[in-house]
Amino acid sequence: MNSGEHVRAGIVVTGTELLTGLLADRNGPWVAQQLGAHGVEVAHLLCVGDRPEDLDSALRFLADQRVDLIVTSGGLGPTADDLTAEIVARFAGVELCLDEAMEQQIAAILARFTHLSRFGPEALRAANHKQAMVPEGAATVDPAGTAPGLVVPAGSGPTVIVLPGPPRELQAMWEPALATGPARAVLERAQPYSGVLLRLFGLPESEIAETLRQVGADVDLSPLEITTCLRRFELEVDVRHRPGAEPVCKTLVSEIARRHGRYLFSSDGSSIDDQVAALLAGRRIGLAESCTGGLLAGRLTERAGSSAYVAGGIVSYSDAAKIELLDVPSGLIERHGAVSPQVARAMADGAVQHFGAEIGCGITGVAGPGGGSEAKPVGYVCVCVTTADGAVLARDPVLPGDRTDVRERSVTLAMHLIRQLLTR
Amino acid sequence: MNSGEHVRAGIVVTGTELLTGLLADRNGPWVAQQLGAHGVEVAHLLCVGDRPEDLDSALRFLADQRVDLIVTSGGLGPTADDLTAEIVARFAGVELCLDEAMEQQIAAILARFTHLSRFGPEALRAANHKQAMVPEGAATVDPAGTAPGLVVPAGSGPTVIVLPGPPRELQAMWEPALATGPARAVLERAQPYSGVLLRLFGLPESEIAETLRQVGADVDLSPLEITTCLRRFELEVDVRHRPGAEPVCKTLVSEIARRHGRYLFSSDGSSIDDQVAALLAGRRIGLAESCTGGLLAGRLTERAGSSAYVAGGIVSYSDAAKIELLDVPSGLIERHGAVSPQVARAMADGAVQHFGAEIGCGITGVAGPGGGSEAKPVGYVCVCVTTADGAVLARDPVLPGDRTDVRERSVTLAMHLIRQLLTR
Repeated sequence: MNSGEHVRAGIVVTGTELLTGLLADRNGPWVAQQLGAHGVEVAHLLCVGDRPEDLDSALRFLADQRVDLIVTSGGLGPTADDLTAEIVARFAGVELCLDEAMEQQIAAILARFTHLSRFGPEALRAANHKQAMVPEGAATVDPAGTAPGLVVPAGSGPTVIVLPGPPRELQAMWEPALATGPARAVLERAQPYSGVLLRLFGLPESEIAETLRQVGADVDLSPLEITTCLRRFELEVDVRHRPGAEPVCKTLVSEIARRHGRYLFSSDGSSIDDQVAALLAGRRIGLAESCTGGLLAGRLTERAGSSAYVAGGIVSYSDAAKIELLDVPSGLIERHGAVSPQVARAMADGAVQHFGAEIGCGITGVAGPGGGSEAKPVGYVCVCVTTADGAVLARDPVLPGDRTDVRERSVTLAMHLIRQLLTR
Repeated sequence: MNSGEHVRAGIVVTGTELLTGLLADRNGPWVAQQLGAHGVEVAHLLCVGDRPEDLDSALRFLADQRVDLIVTSGGLGPTADDLTAEIVARFAGVELCLDEAMEQQIAAILARFTHLSRFGPEALRAANHKQAMVPEGAATVDPAGTAPGLVVPAGSGPTVIVLPGPPRELQAMWEPALATGPARAVLERAQPYSGVLLRLFGLPESEIAETLRQVGADVDLSPLEITTCLRRFELEVDVRHRPGAEPVCKTLVSEIARRHGRYLFSSDGSSIDDQVAALLAGRRIGLAESCTGGLLAGRLTERAGSSAYVAGGIVSYSDAAKIELLDVPSGLIERHGAVSPQVARAMADGAVQHFGAEIGCGITGVAGPGGGSEAKPVGYVCVCVTTADGAVLARDPVLPGDRTDVRERSVTLAMHLIRQLLTR
């Protein structure tokens, strides 16, 4: 599909807990994204148990697939069943040697943890020694926790980057690992992708598929790698290419913008959360939530500094709370029902008033699974955004999915209505 | 480790979007958990791209590992690049044949989707035909969406269960797939695990490791498969075994209960959310949240029927909101600061009063990254639970982690304090 050299990688995540379904892997997607940004194509992602033969067979499989780079996570701890360094050394055909400088560095780190440790002094020395055993010819990466990372050139085979399992440690050690000589030697051969990430809200995926088909009939899109993906109820279109394919990328992006401009809210990588936070700067928002039960407030306060623009919120699950805490007229609820555009509007206005805010948002709906009726089925949600000076934007769709979906989609819809009201 | 026959499985999840890091796989962990419940050990979980050679090499790798069963997800759609059925047929060494009954069934389903479809009538017939092509000897599974599932016995090799990628479809088709003849033939050979899932709150993982070490010195724990895992800031200890190892499992569980009973809150599979929901039945709770910004309200209203016991919540991010909406005395904030046990208590009491609830919870803290001081560093959180009749339970720990961690840990702490106050 492109002219640059293909550098291919495999990722091996170790951990029996990933194979019992107890835990979902977080390292694989993160490493994949990082490698992609360097122009490295990830061909396989494997989760294997903690047994040495499973890791060994995974490494051999990836070597058979002729990948240039392997990244492993996990199995670097101090106990006897943490065997990654040993297995990778065997895979690379080299011996383990004691790295004395590393031994001292780990000793200093372990000393800080002694009071938490389950090891006696003797076991601690053994653990320390074990963690300082490094495959011959490997570059080391300073520990972010207690385990050092390794970058092992494997002769004519793939280079192996060995990192610990805890995501925080792996992520902190990633850049230092890439800066080592053996990793640089691989990455220098990769041609980084360029690309654009488009985000759209409210457009069915099939419409983008149709656009791609129609544009593809006139223009050769094969130099582009296009992935579409629904995430958090937004549609992401990731368009990547190697140098030289800028014009065809531009053509596609402007065609999507021309056809679906109403739905396209981001082409610079910004999220709806970034945009709403920027738009709310210098104003304050008050929230009144029923079926979403505080999730919109939770989402808006995710980011540091949000106290400057989130005045507060009221979760008014009951009619009484709507009437007493938000001054929703009880007659309005009687006439239109608690789930109605009228009550959503009154909730938004009540939030503006009670918090002395410039903008308010009210959400009321039937999240399900019970409580639906023919007129107001499960998924029927009324969202209203108002400002202190009288601007109003409201929607009352029937959202698909289960209770969790309906609640999350309602929050996303509210985020987009806030953006739309503040940008029009 | 055990006497029963080992039935081993591999899982192959297809989708290029999983290898760019755009999306994290949800099917792998789910299928792994289901297989585990049937006593099938998952040896490998692979994510591969949509290229036919990647899926093919993954299947061959798993066959080399001598697994008895392979589960694939994805690649069953109507388009030309959905090639899973074809590749699995080749892997099993059989031809694809038209299943006419399936063709009619799919036609009926597709007819309902025509208005959404990007296909013309001719393309639709082709898609229909393609999706009804079934490997010879395979059992079919009725579609939950538009794509049928397949269960393909692969001669002397592993049996392959082929399911679509959308998690909702895969999950709906799982039990019907297991009920087919070829799947039953494999599962009948597996000896289901029994086991206990223990959940503890507030105990460091190293303490459980030490207990396992000490118990293991007296009792042979090798018939047990023990996995410990931190999830949502609780510690899960999953103890599994084959028939015959009940006594050693019982010994271990009662040793853990004896040593760590204070921290052990569940040994029957129930979550803290299950327990709090059950304890709140017949009462109503009011919430007052500052640093958690509505996340506790969001969590308590996750489940259907929560409107019966969640009276409502106030997100009082500002001092003004605390004073006006929760009647926190302004002098209290001046004397002790907005983040203080005294203000958390006043917030909880305010929530009880304003919502006319039997129980209230107040949370105020420094979620960070800014706003910390020496006396009240980032992570310092005050949580207080009170009842209308004067019972109080409060904690003010310094929680580790970043802003998201601190907020989530605060919510989990609040859930446990609610449980503790209602069970004492």
